[in-house]
Amino acid sequence: MSSRIERLQELLEEPLLVTNLVNVLYLTGFDSSNAALLVEPDRVRLFTDFRYIEAARGIEGVETVQTARSLLGWLSANLSGRFGFEANVLPWSFAEQLREGGIELVPRQGLVEELRAVKDDGELEKFRRACAITDRMFERLASEVPFVGRPERDVAWDIARLFHEEGADEPAFESIVGSGPTGARPHARAGDRIIGSGELVVIDTGANVGGYVSDYTRTFATGELDGEMREAYDVVLAAQQAGLDAIRAGESGVDVDAAARGVVEASAFAGTFGHGLGHGLGLDVHEAPRLSTESSDILAAGNVVTVEPGVYLEGRFGIRIEDDVVVTENGIENPVRFTKELVSVA
Amino acid sequence: MSSRIERLQELLEEPLLVTNLVNVLYLTGFDSSNAALLVEPDRVRLFTDFRYIEAARGIEGVETVQTARSLLGWLSANLSGRFGFEANVLPWSFAEQLREGGIELVPRQGLVEELRAVKDDGELEKFRRACAITDRMFERLASEVPFVGRPERDVAWDIARLFHEEGADEPAFESIVGSGPTGARPHARAGDRIIGSGELVVIDTGANVGGYVSDYTRTFATGELDGEMREAYDVVLAAQQAGLDAIRAGESGVDVDAAARGVVEASAFAGTFGHGLGHGLGLDVHEAPRLSTESSDILAAGNVVTVEPGVYLEGRFGIRIEDDVVVTENGIENPVRFTKELVSVA
Repeated sequence: MSSRIERLQELLEEPLLVTNLVNVLYLTGFDSSNAALLVEPDRVRLFTDFRYIEAARGIEGVETVQTARSLLGWLSANLSGRFGFEANVLPWSFAEQLREGGIELVPRQGLVEELRAVKDDGELEKFRRACAITDRMFERLASEVPFVGRPERDVAWDIARLFHEEGADEPAFESIVGSGPTGARPHARAGDRIIGSGELVVIDTGANVGGYVSDYTRTFATGELDGEMREAYDVVLAAQQAGLDAIRAGESGVDVDAAARGVVEASAFAGTFGHGLGHGLGLDVHEAPRLSTESSDILAAGNVVTVEPGVYLEGRFGIRIEDDVVVTENGIENPVRFTKELVSVA
Repeated sequence: MSSRIERLQELLEEPLLVTNLVNVLYLTGFDSSNAALLVEPDRVRLFTDFRYIEAARGIEGVETVQTARSLLGWLSANLSGRFGFEANVLPWSFAEQLREGGIELVPRQGLVEELRAVKDDGELEKFRRACAITDRMFERLASEVPFVGRPERDVAWDIARLFHEEGADEPAFESIVGSGPTGARPHARAGDRIIGSGELVVIDTGANVGGYVSDYTRTFATGELDGEMREAYDVVLAAQQAGLDAIRAGESGVDVDAAARGVVEASAFAGTFGHGLGHGLGLDVHEAPRLSTESSDILAAGNVVTVEPGVYLEGRFGIRIEDDVVVTENGIENPVRFTKELVSVA
């Protein structure tokens, strides 16, 4: 039995049906697109269909059960009893299907996510490797890759190529390359826009190493910037440092967000930082805890979070600077080495 | 107003809250990670947060409303009335949150998916372009890329590179490269296994072009195969042809599946084809209609489906052959050009 499953068992008031596939992966090491894990005090069953059943076998302390492809329908027909379920994940109709099959369901949220938020040494080692690869990728991106005169999507491809060459298993997510006004859309993808001179280019990207991800943002200049752009860059950089300085175990996600946000709000760019300061990072690119005005999280040692303030001027430009850090009792470990000084690319 | 929204309005018994983001994209062209669309008879509102609000503006006939990052919480506090919701998508707790906010919810399923299943000319054109790129990718993969002595994941990278060079926007999904016994796991990813000689290698991959995907599988030989492997290949090829021959508008997903399955079941490999014959293809890699023993779908002209029987011998090898076809009144249009004869690679 994995110690993760044992820690989960200690948290449970009733057996838990885990249907979030990343949670199944975290608890068992089993990775599929169709599975559920039923964790009872003295028994753990992993349900999956034909396609994955061979890969599911042999997990210590876990019984494997082959189901129909319609996994929830199969569970509804074959299980009975009283179970917690992951109410923020399981679609409404699947919960109803289980209920109609006679299962008594108790809505639960965030139980496995709470465990996942505190990383163990093996997880942190994969995270640090993802960061080291991302550092090397950014070094090569800044020195080897042409920007001006090329479409954003070609730069995004070069990022994918450099990640592969540097040993990432795969990109952590589709890279954002937002040049000029596109950068003012915090989540614009890399598109067909041709990158010009004297622009800002927001690069938000990361690597997946052994299932664990990095998530960095740097904003590059393509040549000489105007004064407002340089001023905005300095504000974002100062806000990011204020956020990093505010992090330690016991601080709230709201307070850390406020530390960075206050710097932007006290500047000429007040009102232009419209998203949260950061989010947890691990098997998912967005997980607990959150650093934002809406967060209810308190930081704990072993959390891994992004710190990514931004300034966005609609129709003109955007700037974001993002590191990933490990929360410690007294502050942070910041494994990110790539510079946050304004880098000019050609 | 898009004609897609108008066709949806004709299907509705009450206003529909669309939270499936691919359905939002299909109806509006708006692509984000946090949005909902409320379709009423005389009004359509698109809800999203700060990060996407700029991109959301300017859609004809659609009002844009900026929400908090916690979109469902915002809707719960700001909407009232009686709405259908996508019960097979919306997590249980979000539906409860809307209910607690005073909204009367009617569970609905598959309304937008029903529209999406029948492709229009513009969609088919993107699909055919994705197929043409995938054909060229496979031609180059078979002739340019070394297999024997390399890990599966390196071949997967070459596939990604060839797709990029041939003009795909991005891979449609993470490629499967299953060599030798790994091929017996229908959904194994490309891993560290070194590809040997005299093996079968299952390659399942596709391209995304303008949002629409292809999804092909071919099984290559690395040199001389034993008699059982060759026999199994011929069985899968015959099963795939039987499936293709059975498709036309008005046929059921169950019957088409049975046509192909019967060929495997009548052979020495009975019982080794453990998944469905195929699935719809479009903005998603898996969408309506389904071709399987569990399907409740009837085919219609304009459906795009995969046809992908397989034979899987645990611990030894797997074989799968997959084309993507357009359903017509009298049969199919099969845009796939790459050969289904057994190809030997080095």
